[in-house]
Amino acid sequence: MEQLIVIKIGGNIIDDEAKLSSFLKTFASVEGKKVLVHGGGKLATRLSAQLDIPQQMVEGRRITDAETLKVVTMVYAGFVNKNIVAQLQAAGTNAIGICGADGNAILAHKRRGAAIDYGFVGDVDAINTDLFQTLLNQDINIVVAPITHDAQGQLLNTNADTIAQEIAKGLSQAFDVSLVYSFEKSGVLRNAEDDSTVINEINPVSYQQLKAEGAIFAGMIPKLDNAFAALNSGVQKVIIGKAEELGQLIKGQAGTTIRAEA
Amino acid sequence: MEQLIVIKIGGNIIDDEAKLSSFLKTFASVEGKKVLVHGGGKLATRLSAQLDIPQQMVEGRRITDAETLKVVTMVYAGFVNKNIVAQLQAAGTNAIGICGADGNAILAHKRRGAAIDYGFVGDVDAINTDLFQTLLNQDINIVVAPITHDAQGQLLNTNADTIAQEIAKGLSQAFDVSLVYSFEKSGVLRNAEDDSTVINEINPVSYQQLKAEGAIFAGMIPKLDNAFAALNSGVQKVIIGKAEELGQLIKGQAGTTIRAEA
Repeated sequence: MEQLIVIKIGGNIIDDEAKLSSFLKTFASVEGKKVLVHGGGKLATRLSAQLDIPQQMVEGRRITDAETLKVVTMVYAGFVNKNIVAQLQAAGTNAIGICGADGNAILAHKRRGAAIDYGFVGDVDAINTDLFQTLLNQDINIVVAPITHDAQGQLLNTNADTIAQEIAKGLSQAFDVSLVYSFEKSGVLRNAEDDSTVINEINPVSYQQLKAEGAIFAGMIPKLDNAFAALNSGVQKVIIGKAEELGQLIKGQAGTTIRAEA
Repeated sequence: MEQLIVIKIGGNIIDDEAKLSSFLKTFASVEGKKVLVHGGGKLATRLSAQLDIPQQMVEGRRITDAETLKVVTMVYAGFVNKNIVAQLQAAGTNAIGICGADGNAILAHKRRGAAIDYGFVGDVDAINTDLFQTLLNQDINIVVAPITHDAQGQLLNTNADTIAQEIAKGLSQAFDVSLVYSFEKSGVLRNAEDDSTVINEINPVSYQQLKAEGAIFAGMIPKLDNAFAALNSGVQKVIIGKAEELGQLIKGQAGTTIRAEA
């Protein structure tokens, strides 16, 4: 099967113009079919502050009220998404920017039954794999903003990590999918404070050993559990590392590669 | 050839939630392939004011400085575009929202050589008809925000009327294109103050007569000249009227229909 790379970039890249520009040039130079999922960085927070929209936080989680939804729709699906696409076009890579409402790409429902009312936050129900395939088969790379819809006219703020994972899983029937999560660290670290302690490969057996040794920072465990869930749903490999090292991450020369088998 | 309807809606519809919702339901009920081009209404102006971005006007034209470009990208390509798409999905019509950078849909260049420096304003160079056809042939309607790009990474604010016209012209090789301009009035009026004086049909011969009689309001003449330019470039008909009457406009039961031949 043909290769597909699904890459999630975090706010630390979005917020840094030079880093983002450099990342996009590398992204453009990676051959083959690609999906890029982005968050919005601090720009949404800053814009909310400028507009005097109070940030409601409950237990460390941001609540998406109607005004905040408007801001994240403007920033994520508008400013960030279109600037990324324009830069990719400049780098000679054709790309289209979408949110989950576009072509019914990502159907979700407003989160329900949670102890906290998160507001206009969506949990993903389905990926429209036909749309992704139609575009990818025309050699159009896809840039996804983390806004979904409920098919009733409501846009919903949705976690970008989850979107990347669902796209990777959904397309794993049609492609050999590598899912790349980029974040601030160089990979999964034995010592969270020391970037030179990257664990190069993790498989289910070594994962159990590493956990037993207490060698994995607690904050990484949900990420790794998600990675194994993706692998169990057909994704070929999950790579965790720094966006700045994208080229090496894909080749297995940097970051942590997680595989379903030893 | 198959029919294609290219519809431009103005700010008066975008700014009125109930009117927009009603328009989109009618749009969804119109059979066949459709492209919707929208402006941004007063929301961009309001957001600029909230953010203390001064509106620079020169000879009645708004100048798009860097901060204003950011605002219009957020509002047009983000908030307005994605809410229209979500509402169309809710009405059972598949649609994808794009700006000119997406899939290299609309290539433009920063306006040059004008007596006034309009800032980040684009004049259209080319429509990517392949992209439009790929999407339309999958029965995906296209919603276009009036932001283009220059293929060098720069987004550009671009007149929505011009975008609609260029799309209609570009696709007239592949489709029988009707171009619908919606605005506040019921059509081209003999008496600009009286909505009951709509001229139902205009052709090149009657246009000359109407102009000679002084029966056409001066402000309409550039619009009509543009309509004839579109017809001369292969567009089948141009219809001018109220967005609220979309169903009747398309059937020739309301508004003004402009044809290349008597």
